[in-house]
Amino acid sequence: MAAMHQWWERDRLHYVEDRLVFAGRSVAGLARQFDSPAFFYDAARVAANLTRVHDALDEAGFAGRHRINYAMKANRFAPLLTWMKTSGLCSVDACSPREVEHAISSGFSPAEISFTATSLSDRDFDRLSRLDGLEMNCDSLHSLRQWGERGSGRSVGIRVNPAVGVGRAQNEMLQYSGGRTTKFGIYREQFGVALELAARYDLTVERIHFHTGCGYLTPQLSAWEKVVEECLWFVDQVATVTTVNVGGGLGVPHVAMDDPLDLSCWARILNRHFRPRDLQIEVEPGDYLVKDAGLLLLTVNAVETKKDTMFVGVDAGFNIAVEPAVYGLPFQPVPVCRRPGAEIPITLVGNINEALDVWYPNVLLPQLKTGDPLALINAGAYSSSMASNHCMRGEFREFLLL
Amino acid sequence: MAAMHQWWERDRLHYVEDRLVFAGRSVAGLARQFDSPAFFYDAARVAANLTRVHDALDEAGFAGRHRINYAMKANRFAPLLTWMKTSGLCSVDACSPREVEHAISSGFSPAEISFTATSLSDRDFDRLSRLDGLEMNCDSLHSLRQWGERGSGRSVGIRVNPAVGVGRAQNEMLQYSGGRTTKFGIYREQFGVALELAARYDLTVERIHFHTGCGYLTPQLSAWEKVVEECLWFVDQVATVTTVNVGGGLGVPHVAMDDPLDLSCWARILNRHFRPRDLQIEVEPGDYLVKDAGLLLLTVNAVETKKDTMFVGVDAGFNIAVEPAVYGLPFQPVPVCRRPGAEIPITLVGNINEALDVWYPNVLLPQLKTGDPLALINAGAYSSSMASNHCMRGEFREFLLL
Repeated sequence: MAAMHQWWERDRLHYVEDRLVFAGRSVAGLARQFDSPAFFYDAARVAANLTRVHDALDEAGFAGRHRINYAMKANRFAPLLTWMKTSGLCSVDACSPREVEHAISSGFSPAEISFTATSLSDRDFDRLSRLDGLEMNCDSLHSLRQWGERGSGRSVGIRVNPAVGVGRAQNEMLQYSGGRTTKFGIYREQFGVALELAARYDLTVERIHFHTGCGYLTPQLSAWEKVVEECLWFVDQVATVTTVNVGGGLGVPHVAMDDPLDLSCWARILNRHFRPRDLQIEVEPGDYLVKDAGLLLLTVNAVETKKDTMFVGVDAGFNIAVEPAVYGLPFQPVPVCRRPGAEIPITLVGNINEALDVWYPNVLLPQLKTGDPLALINAGAYSSSMASNHCMRGEFREFLLL
Repeated sequence: MAAMHQWWERDRLHYVEDRLVFAGRSVAGLARQFDSPAFFYDAARVAANLTRVHDALDEAGFAGRHRINYAMKANRFAPLLTWMKTSGLCSVDACSPREVEHAISSGFSPAEISFTATSLSDRDFDRLSRLDGLEMNCDSLHSLRQWGERGSGRSVGIRVNPAVGVGRAQNEMLQYSGGRTTKFGIYREQFGVALELAARYDLTVERIHFHTGCGYLTPQLSAWEKVVEECLWFVDQVATVTTVNVGGGLGVPHVAMDDPLDLSCWARILNRHFRPRDLQIEVEPGDYLVKDAGLLLLTVNAVETKKDTMFVGVDAGFNIAVEPAVYGLPFQPVPVCRRPGAEIPITLVGNINEALDVWYPNVLLPQLKTGDPLALINAGAYSSSMASNHCMRGEFREFLLL
């Protein structure tokens, strides 16, 4: 059978004579050596993703004037973090004291960590204020006070809320600002008070930070530009601002109809608004760096038709990778060894006793049978980091592929 | 101020002079002694819930002819399991080999465990088949074969799918059968083949099992009766059936407008259909036994108005109790010390950097301030058992209150 080109095939993830190759390895070989469920992460793909962001920002006039903070909440697998540190390609974005400590334990210094969080306790701030050089962004008047009380004369960032948002099309779960008032950031109405507070504690406002939604692709870039424009109002209030932190949210295709994000177009928007102001850029992608570098290897436990539906049941459920079932972000299933013959519609389900536990309804795949390995691609972000032991089905392995 | 009676107040959960009392303890006292976030479980309330189910079944003619299998996936906190075992009030419903082992490690015997799961591997069946007396319910032709191949001459249950469902009103996430074909159970169309398979492996079909949705209350009981009626078709095909396992799904009020499930009415439905057939009943509640026996104690970290909304931010997020944010099942927030003065609308949010992380939007509460303890009630089920370490905010404590 002639190899058909699938929408998701690319460098380091493709079929060679009907055998799936990922990160230069035969996935069948991985399946032979390691028990499933197992996540595999392709370090070279992470590097390529990082380099692509750097290149786009360089080309948009930010060479030597930008920093990528990897949003570690997407995947905190320690070998991955240490590899990222040694690559020299990125810093880290953390959102809790334990994340900060984990990043440091994996090799990053506090000065390489940008911290942005919400609803922090005094104890959280006590822990954070002991770290020399941590980049703190405050998301509320409250947190400006808490940070200021623990040491004046420092620099600080302010997370703002531009009251407009952007995110993956038709996915309300991923909107962080916009119509509804959210807990994130300081709105225009309070920004004057925020600046007064900063002055009272002798905090120099060096950064304006915003993060307004997740998973945006090229069609959402005009909405993204509106967000950027709204944020200029904040930037222009503060003479001491040297850096704009544009948050994360850069998306990755999940289905055939998604086109990859046009990074040049994205960077040109930053150029248009921030280059004339001579600002540095920080960007905090999570998904964009690690999602398509991750593959979840499963095994088919059962194939059985019930009424009108052929169910293929695998050896893991939504609890180890919540995006498909909970967030409506599907992971394309890919047979490790592609058999000849027509594709048939199946519904891919997990081993959790819960109605929600559907990996992919009604997807066309070549015939599968019990014992077959099966890969879910683009599973490298918000999977293991959000995994639970629901039904005590939380066991999985993780491997960094160098 | 005169104590107002709140919709959720009851025996062992109520205000005494504006101080919340739970399980006979001052919750302020618990907050003084233990760090939050912390779950507290009232053993006596679990006992009362179990006794209420027993009494209803006794009154409906099933005295000495029923068994309650606690659905341990709702909450597997080992001290709670061991206490339930020693109470003598229930057996266990488990859905994975590790759950079975955990129940045994907590004191239950295999014969006290009813097992019903989906998409099991051969290795899963190998582990399960070593346990003497485990009550196995097979949910597919596939699993009948797998179980049969590991030992003939045993008894078995068959999980059926009646193709009609029942669950909490307007909550599709909790429907396990009905319009859409689901992975659960054997439909009428395959039941003949299932019985042939059982015969081939000399498995005696002693039980018919069904579980068709979660969270049903009294208004859903007419739908529940339709489910029961559909299941009679299966029961009547098999002369060897001695027991009907009616699954779980018995709901608990989450909001003021929910009335408690009328258990007598529920049991009368079982009486009408199963007593004339001289069948024994097994029932597998999770929520109903432990949800309203659990209280999640939090601390207010921040109170801040943003635009039109007063946000109260607490020291834990949706990752340690997913039902409100993910399943749309709210947990009523209850001040531990009720201050005089008018109630005001607030939006209760957690400390996770995610738009989803809202505990309760727009709820009326007395004024709160930073440092106040706050209780979320009815948090005893599907909270700690589904908790993740998302954002490394997964730390919490659990206490069994005897």
